Amino acid sequence: MSDSCKIISLGEVCDYLRKHDNYLILTHASPDGDTLGSGFGLMRVLEDLGKKAKVFCPEGIPKKFEYLAKTPKVDFKEKTIVAVDIADPKLLGMACEQYADKVQLCIDHHISNTKYSKSLYLDATSAAACESIYTIAVALGVEINQDIANALYTGIATDTGCFKFSNTTAKTHSITAKLFEAGVDATEINRAMFETISCARLDIERLALDTIDFRFNGKCAVISITADMIEKTKCEKSDLEGITAIARTIEGVVVGITLRENQRGRIKASVRTHDPIDACAICNNLGGGGHPRASGCEVVGDVDHAKQEILKYVGQALENANLI
Amino acid sequence: MSDSCKIISLGEVCDYLRKHDNYLILTHASPDGDTLGSGFGLMRVLEDLGKKAKVFCPEGIPKKFEYLAKTPKVDFKEKTIVAVDIADPKLLGMACEQYADKVQLCIDHHISNTKYSKSLYLDATSAAACESIYTIAVALGVEINQDIANALYTGIATDTGCFKFSNTTAKTHSITAKLFEAGVDATEINRAMFETISCARLDIERLALDTIDFRFNGKCAVISITADMIEKTKCEKSDLEGITAIARTIEGVVVGITLRENQRGRIKASVRTHDPIDACAICNNLGGGGHPRASGCEVVGDVDHAKQEILKYVGQALENANLI
Repeated sequence: MSDSCKIISLGEVCDYLRKHDNYLILTHASPDGDTLGSGFGLMRVLEDLGKKAKVFCPEGIPKKFEYLAKTPKVDFKEKTIVAVDIADPKLLGMACEQYADKVQLCIDHHISNTKYSKSLYLDATSAAACESIYTIAVALGVEINQDIANALYTGIATDTGCFKFSNTTAKTHSITAKLFEAGVDATEINRAMFETISCARLDIERLALDTIDFRFNGKCAVISITADMIEKTKCEKSDLEGITAIARTIEGVVVGITLRENQRGRIKASVRTHDPIDACAICNNLGGGGHPRASGCEVVGDVDHAKQEILKYVGQALENANLI
Repeated sequence: MSDSCKIISLGEVCDYLRKHDNYLILTHASPDGDTLGSGFGLMRVLEDLGKKAKVFCPEGIPKKFEYLAKTPKVDFKEKTIVAVDIADPKLLGMACEQYADKVQLCIDHHISNTKYSKSLYLDATSAAACESIYTIAVALGVEINQDIANALYTGIATDTGCFKFSNTTAKTHSITAKLFEAGVDATEINRAMFETISCARLDIERLALDTIDFRFNGKCAVISITADMIEKTKCEKSDLEGITAIARTIEGVVVGITLRENQRGRIKASVRTHDPIDACAICNNLGGGGHPRASGCEVVGDVDHAKQEILKYVGQALENANLI
């Protein structure tokens, strides 16, 4: 946390964006729809104000999000560094060292933001950072065109699980109605985000479902995906995404865990909970974090070891909530 | 089609509802969220106007929708018969004979409505009949309370696949924003509708995925669920619901078909398509129908026979669209 992080208002963030130029907009590593939608949405808003802006993705843009970046790249020397949807500079991944202490403005919606930037516009009532970008665009008097609408819809739809998750609010739907009026191509975006699964994804899902391990009288379900399974099905990172949602959806399950051996000997645990279990608190115990209903952490070791470690804290949480 | 079906305006439907009393609201057989949400939503709107109203479900209310019907039943002699979300009196199932020619008012959003009622309020721009009930409630000056919001949200969310399908519009999201302002319990409803799968559903899904048959160079995928599979997994009708969506979601698939042997020797085919293939036209050939992207029909015979029958028309449709 920077001692000098200034929390700024909507008026101040607009003044800031009007005053500066030559923007480099940083998105987080393992980019999702919200960081990319916010990045490209803000870029287009700034261009509408006559500014130069470009988006930097530490790991490149995943294929399914390439439609967000279809304009030709402009070349200029960056002066103003803005981070979007980045709660912690560690999330910059390999760009962390280069940019961690150089972020002038951060626009975010995570209450856990570590206040690493010089200025911070934080709206934790937004389901997605893209909601904040919309609010800023309107406050700046920028007309929402189809490109902006597509970018912002991408973030809102993906961060809310297409309006399914509990972070969805009246504001989420109101803003989305405006994006529809601006001509958002929601059908195509929904199809790409939620309605398209690869054959590799089908294969890994079948293998994953075979591993379901119910614990604590069915209150917890654990799905395990080993490096061998990933190799065998030739599935890519993006093929594994939605699988983390499955365990929690099983009837009676309050804590759904997905363990993924992305690298041999390193397990990424995704924890999804129903009220009242705090997924973030469970993951905090193992050095991770996130949102109350969806968090993650990393455990060194194999899948069985990771399961054992995380189940200790799940058991405590279920006990504290009088669910077991 | 009744010769005397009068298409009425929003003002006229409001006048009608204000003028009459002792309503029996009919919902369709194999009830879904939209017919039940419309039924119970309209019932509460009428109660707010001081009317007596009850909902009739030909086959009873499925367990997952029981929350819609939690008020005590009132007893009175029905005088005014209203059908909601019922495009064709055949959809009344076993109540067809009793009510087919007695429906005074139908409120619907299916362009294929057969105009069997005395009066018809048809808004084919609505993604769900519940959108029309909302519009009517507002026009009647009824305040949307939490119970009405929960009923209408149920229909809107289920008929749009939680805002994923191409029938979703700016109006859909605007109305939903208002339902959130009225205190809709969207988190619980979404959890029950979209985020809860039974163990039997998991089992049948695994078996179903093993049957995927790709045809026409991967443009068509067919999933087959036999009566034996249904028996073996002890799954109920509701466990089978979402499975019809899977085939179309596979990358490259334009026509996704799910064949279900609900009764031995009778196959229910669900056809889901992407633009430009007309699912309704395919099913029309076999005596079925529905929406352009989601239709169904029934074929007598076993799964293999049904597959052969329907694939003839799929092949023609793909050829006509120059996709094969």
